[in-house]
Amino acid sequence: MQLVQATRDDLLKPLSTVVGIVERRHTLPILANILIQKNAQDLSFLATDLEVQITTRSQFGVGDSQTATTVAARKLLDILRALPDFGDVRWALDNGKLTIQSGKSRFQLQTLEAADFPTLSQPETWDVSFSLPQKTLKHLFNTVHFAMAQQDIRYYLNGMLFVFEPGLVRTVTTDGHRLAHNATEVESGIEARHDVIVPRKTVLEMQRLLAETDEPVQIDVAAGQIRFRFGGVELISKLVEGKFPDFARVIPSTYTRHFDLKREALQGSLQRAAILTTDKLRGVRLQLSQNTLKISASNAEQEEAVEELDVDYEHEPLDVGFNVSYLLDVLANIKDETVRWSVQPDANASVLMTLPEEDSFKYVVMPMRI
Amino acid sequence: MQLVQATRDDLLKPLSTVVGIVERRHTLPILANILIQKNAQDLSFLATDLEVQITTRSQFGVGDSQTATTVAARKLLDILRALPDFGDVRWALDNGKLTIQSGKSRFQLQTLEAADFPTLSQPETWDVSFSLPQKTLKHLFNTVHFAMAQQDIRYYLNGMLFVFEPGLVRTVTTDGHRLAHNATEVESGIEARHDVIVPRKTVLEMQRLLAETDEPVQIDVAAGQIRFRFGGVELISKLVEGKFPDFARVIPSTYTRHFDLKREALQGSLQRAAILTTDKLRGVRLQLSQNTLKISASNAEQEEAVEELDVDYEHEPLDVGFNVSYLLDVLANIKDETVRWSVQPDANASVLMTLPEEDSFKYVVMPMRI
Repeated sequence: MQLVQATRDDLLKPLSTVVGIVERRHTLPILANILIQKNAQDLSFLATDLEVQITTRSQFGVGDSQTATTVAARKLLDILRALPDFGDVRWALDNGKLTIQSGKSRFQLQTLEAADFPTLSQPETWDVSFSLPQKTLKHLFNTVHFAMAQQDIRYYLNGMLFVFEPGLVRTVTTDGHRLAHNATEVESGIEARHDVIVPRKTVLEMQRLLAETDEPVQIDVAAGQIRFRFGGVELISKLVEGKFPDFARVIPSTYTRHFDLKREALQGSLQRAAILTTDKLRGVRLQLSQNTLKISASNAEQEEAVEELDVDYEHEPLDVGFNVSYLLDVLANIKDETVRWSVQPDANASVLMTLPEEDSFKYVVMPMRI
Repeated sequence: MQLVQATRDDLLKPLSTVVGIVERRHTLPILANILIQKNAQDLSFLATDLEVQITTRSQFGVGDSQTATTVAARKLLDILRALPDFGDVRWALDNGKLTIQSGKSRFQLQTLEAADFPTLSQPETWDVSFSLPQKTLKHLFNTVHFAMAQQDIRYYLNGMLFVFEPGLVRTVTTDGHRLAHNATEVESGIEARHDVIVPRKTVLEMQRLLAETDEPVQIDVAAGQIRFRFGGVELISKLVEGKFPDFARVIPSTYTRHFDLKREALQGSLQRAAILTTDKLRGVRLQLSQNTLKISASNAEQEEAVEELDVDYEHEPLDVGFNVSYLLDVLANIKDETVRWSVQPDANASVLMTLPEEDSFKYVVMPMRI
């Protein structure tokens, strides 16, 4: 039975969109597969790891039949990618095997029953529903994702706090050593404050899938679940249970000593200083004095890096240590020309980094003893 | 004491040339360093792993002093790479530390005594001396390197046989399953046949360093040692002791059934068929019949790939299995449009691949039972 006919590239796009979340190793073999559902022209691909589920829809179905099957996701993608880019690719389902045919190439893949494929059940109603331009949501994720924890036993840190307030959404991440915050205005759809935690994998996958366009993403939230719909893509993710730290208490609001730095110059100096730190001890020392920021690092062999930057700072000197990775992470994920630092005259106080061009962004880094 | 003054990029080139062979882990700590030798303007960098040694020469020395020291190779390279590309970089040696300074960046690196740095001693006379254009030598290496063994207990296979004959040099590699051979004419310098085995690392390093130019490489060979000199680079390598297999007996000379294939089409078909092989069992089946080559692969799940290519073959059918990697390796390392196969009507006989445009190239692959 013929299922699909389209060019290689037409099929590659929806296929590669869903295959990203297929785990290479899984206890449940069918999760290495994608669910292919066809109803006349309507064709959908669905992949899941039981936490996140992505569905793409297209119109490459052939004939009037209605059918569904599952087949190894990565093999199917590898075959499509390796086919030459001319003529149509045809898929057919016969005797439990999916045949992929293009020119003089023919592949037969084993299928597993569509009925055995686990999909996430969706709630009947959603508590919050609103939309944002894709590029706005992508920016909210891009500017905070790097401060998420990884495999922390405080499992609620291995994700991103997504806060919905009337007129505003915030994204917040922290691993206990630094905290990133951003926010954007939303016109309508949010009646009361909701806080949810989006799993790390979902955040990273959304960053990969969202485009730099004004096209909308529809966002729906219910107990334990969030849904993103954009283009022909639907991504549903479970939410992380747990209580996220109170970001408002972490972000300083009383610091009065500020100075601006050129992002690229600061990034270069820190990258060079980082060469003389070790993987275990990533500490760099920042010494602020009248109009000068001195960045230095040294290692057990008494080797030393010293960098100096001119700054517009006229307060009391400050001598403070940081994990250089925490500073480099943020500088690599923002695009602004200028970064504003706010400090206290206390080597144990956090530093607040903001952007003169974007009020909503805030990054807090705790110092380290070096 | 000032040692060096030059732009970042002027220093990066000779430095990155030598640092490639510095091993990341070594029992002898000083081998993580490079030897810096300065005699007035003459400046040389030298790195070694006790098997291979590379020296580059430049004219970036400052002042009349003559001195030598050693410093961590990768740190020095990382620092140079991370410096901004403006103004000069200055190196100075004081109190056993090397200071690298550029703009408002300053680094101090620990040194170890130059006198403790082990260098390869060179023979007083060389048995063979000749030269080839760099691109010719690079091509000789590029077209055979992939068939070298890796960590084989037959240690002499973990390298490349380099044969010098009056008027001719050959490169030959084999891992026991396939053999690659190439050759080129040499005008003068070789009086009698010499066979030497160049270590794997030296071959790969030379491929990296040789340029696609007509500029000459001077090649000198003595007992246990080979030397390559080109541009400002001198590479000296120990040779592998041992008896290399007799390539002349492996390369078939009596096959009379030939057919030509377009390299890219064959490569595409094999790459697609390879998707349905496993890492352990990389077998593909080739079935030759009147004017058709059928390439197929199948796996334990009864999945199958079938590819067909038109060929100008009018002899008896042949049905033979190959490790697909051995076929893909050669196709990825030659540039020719057409590849000629020579076969015997025997599924246990090797296949000979040659190039209509390059007589000297020969690749022999043994079949596998699948």
